[in-house]
Amino acid sequence: MSDQPISRYPVPEIKDLPEDLKEMILGVQEKAGFVPNVFLALAHRPDELRAFFAYHDAIMLRESNLTKAEKEMIIVTTSSDNNCLYCVVAHGAILRIYAKNALISDQLATNHNKADITPRQKAMLDFALLVSNDAGSIGDEDYEFMSEHGFSEEDLWDIGAITAFFGLSNRMANLTSMRPNDEFFKMGR
Amino acid sequence: MSDQPISRYPVPEIKDLPEDLKEMILGVQEKAGFVPNVFLALAHRPDELRAFFAYHDAIMLRESNLTKAEKEMIIVTTSSDNNCLYCVVAHGAILRIYAKNALISDQLATNHNKADITPRQKAMLDFALLVSNDAGSIGDEDYEFMSEHGFSEEDLWDIGAITAFFGLSNRMANLTSMRPNDEFFKMGR
Amino acid sequence: MSDQPISRYPVPEIKDLPEDLKEMILGVQEKAGFVPNVFLALAHRPDELRAFFAYHDAIMLRESNLTKAEKEMIIVTTSSDNNCLYCVVAHGAILRIYAKNALISDQLATNHNKADITPRQKAMLDFALLVSNDAGSIGDEDYEFMSEHGFSEEDLWDIGAITAFFGLSNRMANLTSMRPNDEFFKMGR
Amino acid sequence: MSDQPISRYPVPEIKDLPEDLKEMILGVQEKAGFVPNVFLALAHRPDELRAFFAYHDAIMLRESNLTKAEKEMIIVTTSSDNNCLYCVVAHGAILRIYAKNALISDQLATNHNKADITPRQKAMLDFALLVSNDAGSIGDEDYEFMSEHGFSEEDLWDIGAITAFFGLSNRMANLTSMRPNDEFFKMGR
Amino acid sequence: MSDQPISRYPVPEIKDLPEDLKEMILGVQEKAGFVPNVFLALAHRPDELRAFFAYHDAIMLRESNLTKAEKEMIIVTTSSDNNCLYCVVAHGAILRIYAKNALISDQLATNHNKADITPRQKAMLDFALLVSNDAGSIGDEDYEFMSEHGFSEEDLWDIGAITAFFGLSNRMANLTSMRPNDEFFKMGR
Amino acid sequence: MSDQPISRYPVPEIKDLPEDLKEMILGVQEKAGFVPNVFLALAHRPDELRAFFAYHDAIMLRESNLTKAEKEMIIVTTSSDNNCLYCVVAHGAILRIYAKNALISDQLATNHNKADITPRQKAMLDFALLVSNDAGSIGDEDYEFMSEHGFSEEDLWDIGAITAFFGLSNRMANLTSMRPNDEFFKMGR
Repeated sequence: MSDQPISRYPVPEIKDLPEDLKEMILGVQEKAGFVPNVFLALAHRPDELRAFFAYHDAIMLRESNLTKAEKEMIIVTTSSDNNCLYCVVAHGAILRIYAKNALISDQLATNHNKADITPRQKAMLDFALLVSNDAGSIGDEDYEFMSEHGFSEEDLWDIGAITAFFGLSNRMANLTSMRPNDEFFKMGR
Repeated sequence: MSDQPISRYPVPEIKDLPEDLKEMILGVQEKAGFVPNVFLALAHRPDELRAFFAYHDAIMLRESNLTKAEKEMIIVTTSSDNNCLYCVVAHGAILRIYAKNALISDQLATNHNKADITPRQKAMLDFALLVSNDAGSIGDEDYEFMSEHGFSEEDLWDIGAITAFFGLSNRMANLTSMRPNDEFFKMGR
Repeated sequence: MSDQPISRYPVPEIKDLPEDLKEMILGVQEKAGFVPNVFLALAHRPDELRAFFAYHDAIMLRESNLTKAEKEMIIVTTSSDNNCLYCVVAHGAILRIYAKNALISDQLATNHNKADITPRQKAMLDFALLVSNDAGSIGDEDYEFMSEHGFSEEDLWDIGAITAFFGLSNRMANLTSMRPNDEFFKMGR
Repeated sequence: MSDQPISRYPVPEIKDLPEDLKEMILGVQEKAGFVPNVFLALAHRPDELRAFFAYHDAIMLRESNLTKAEKEMIIVTTSSDNNCLYCVVAHGAILRIYAKNALISDQLATNHNKADITPRQKAMLDFALLVSNDAGSIGDEDYEFMSEHGFSEEDLWDIGAITAFFGLSNRMANLTSMRPNDEFFKMGR
Repeated sequence: MSDQPISRYPVPEIKDLPEDLKEMILGVQEKAGFVPNVFLALAHRPDELRAFFAYHDAIMLRESNLTKAEKEMIIVTTSSDNNCLYCVVAHGAILRIYAKNALISDQLATNHNKADITPRQKAMLDFALLVSNDAGSIGDEDYEFMSEHGFSEEDLWDIGAITAFFGLSNRMANLTSMRPNDEFFKMGR
Repeated sequence: MSDQPISRYPVPEIKDLPEDLKEMILGVQEKAGFVPNVFLALAHRPDELRAFFAYHDAIMLRESNLTKAEKEMIIVTTSSDNNCLYCVVAHGAILRIYAKNALISDQLATNHNKADITPRQKAMLDFALLVSNDAGSIGDEDYEFMSEHGFSEEDLWDIGAITAFFGLSNRMANLTSMRPNDEFFKMGR
């Protein structure tokens, strides 16, 4: 197991956290078998951690036409474009599991144009990268183009919101040098 | 008053919103004299609106070495770099008021290098733009450089978190073609 | 009133200028109520000031299918893209007045894709940005595309010449840290 | 001799031009042995041609610490960066003659870092490219850096003005598909 | 095992190849346990395959101050920057084995600034990316900077040659949609 | 004749080279009248020189639907985009001779959009630049587009391989500050 720091900022002990966060983290640990470092790194500022996961749940747990795997595809592709090690590795693991596909995450992280995905998923990822890199140019013609691929306006809000939220996450992870748990690298391969 | 839509997505009536959001929005209206469109546009999805303002408050209301005006400088500068009309206009108005300076927002929105700010504030904005555009390259040497300008690691988290959060906001505003209220354009001039 | 220098270069007294320039500047002052700083900053080199306004008048006063407001739209949009504070603020003021529209300049300076303009004007501004950033790629297909939007080849020369001339102006203003007069910030709002 | 058009716009006959332009052009022809196409292409709009050469002369004929060859180095380097065929070929010819150096223009047009120039000239060209591509970032530290290489503030105005003016010229030449005279390709080799 | 094509071009049967190539490929198969797809994809043009591996061996088998793992670090980092799926996955596998480190390849492929490497290796990878993206700007100051990190001029040729050769390889792999063998994804984890 | 070094690395005497390289170089000298510096500069590492020309010959001497001049067009255009002085000047000379056209090389090196070439050749050069700068995005739609211009998949391999190989060459020439022979500058004008 690596003994590198998981954040350049102080990392609190779980036992010293406010009750609600302690409970949330222990719940995750029970389910995953370990505590993903993002919880510990962001717990340096409890209010922000709380808001982070409230936002996360609002977009990720919401009923959607996107499958769970497709949401993770968006995260892996845009996080790689943002050079975010934590998100590529952690969500790459989750994507492999959801998609039951050992190759998909490395494919998307390197070049989504060469990945084993459908044309509809390629359009979805192109749109996510557009939101990430040049949202100011988005207009009616993009909505129309995506509509031809079967995406409703609500679907595009989903894609946009996931991209925007993980764009925030990518920047915080890079700022803090957040380190992915060793466990994630191997999961689902 | 413009009669253009304030979002390309449906905008709910305030009276139809969940009680807590109705209360929040009416509180803002009382203080500002009008309801900033961001509340109405994001209210299309109440859970996301709730999480958005929880996050907003966690970083903006937090005790900080940055002044209120400096936080708004970061928002105006990075939002302009992201071509976000809503945030440049709305936060430009707030900045003029906090800074008691009618010129500062247009200066920062066009070219922060030519604005009437201190060298310390220039370093702060350069760092914010680095978080916004290339967070993956941030390393010890950036922390050291900023330390020479008097910024602690906690200050840099503040700058980074504001930049990252409004980066999310910029992307959602551009995706939805969120329109700034006419009132903002003139405030504080 | 700001007491910041209006240029990093020496600024001559109007009374010490050659007769023709003195006359030109006093004429402008009479009409505008103040002397725009560009006259004073460039007067450091009288021959260049003289040539600058000869060129300016040749393209701006010429009979054209573009309205006066449309010419200013081009200036504001490309000057913002070139991060030129002087031109965005001074021509933003003029545009507000010509267009009788208090919002248009801030809209164009931040993101012309989200401005209250016609599709024809959007095509005009896209073409101007193409001249500004990648004129070497312009070919028949661009002329054809613009023709479909109703622009003749002469109209495109107009758009191109305005863009090219203010590109020169933007670079000189940034080089000299030319400062917009305080008056411009508020005009036409 | 090529029989390609020298501009995508109509080109007037010299004999039909206003007297002053006719005289100017015949004067150039007498000296150079041929009429450089820029005169004919821009003569489509006499007022603009007149202003163009007034500006040209104001910056190029002015007393300066830059040698004539150095001014042409700036033009060749920035025009190549702007992909302007007319200016690279025409001013490349002039530079070869002024510098009495058959290789220098191709070197600068391809990669000024590998050209046979002095470190001072390299600094001059780096500054010119900065004016051309990112004038908005120029600040005190650039002036100081250039001062260490022996450039006064007036010298930097010279470099900046030449760059800005030929930036205009590059955009007009590309817009009009201005074609360099065949003669220029071989001159001074 | 995937049944996707390994190249968009025809792939020859090993038994139909010229004797020397058949031998080379069977030798690799014996050592690796399988035939890496690059051999089969490039075998579409035997002369190019032969030259490719002659060049490969000339730079990779040469005596060098770079360790075998360091050479692979260069390949993984620059190939990821070039979005080359084949090279990132295949050489990522080889790097994990040479470095006896299950995490290093994913780290480098996502963000070499956050990888578990030495400052000397970070300088090596920065230089490789410079060769890959802007070799034209390389000058004495880069050689001096690298010398301070202990790299001789011969070492820099090594870094540059590996980067340049795999830049060729990346372009051919992307052009042909060369697919990495499934085996590589899991090796060395 | 310039007396500048032709490489920043040691350059061997021809007489000290291995027999096969000596023979190859003397053969070239006999045909060209001088030894192109690339042979001498790369001879610093005989194995790499040998592999370099094996690769060169495999792609350049191969039967192809591209004419010899078209292959050189690709080299000049992409080498200029890579700011490689050696390749632009040396292959510019060869192109002038093959194409019997004194102007074509300077045209392509400055702006291939303004060169005297056919639409098919323009498509060929656009594709070459795509391989050079963004090969990872190449997909079916590019192959289809090129097919409409009459290019088979084998033709596209030719274009891609030439681009990729000279991309390697450009990087090595820039790394070593390889200097073109004076002779090349004037040939074929």
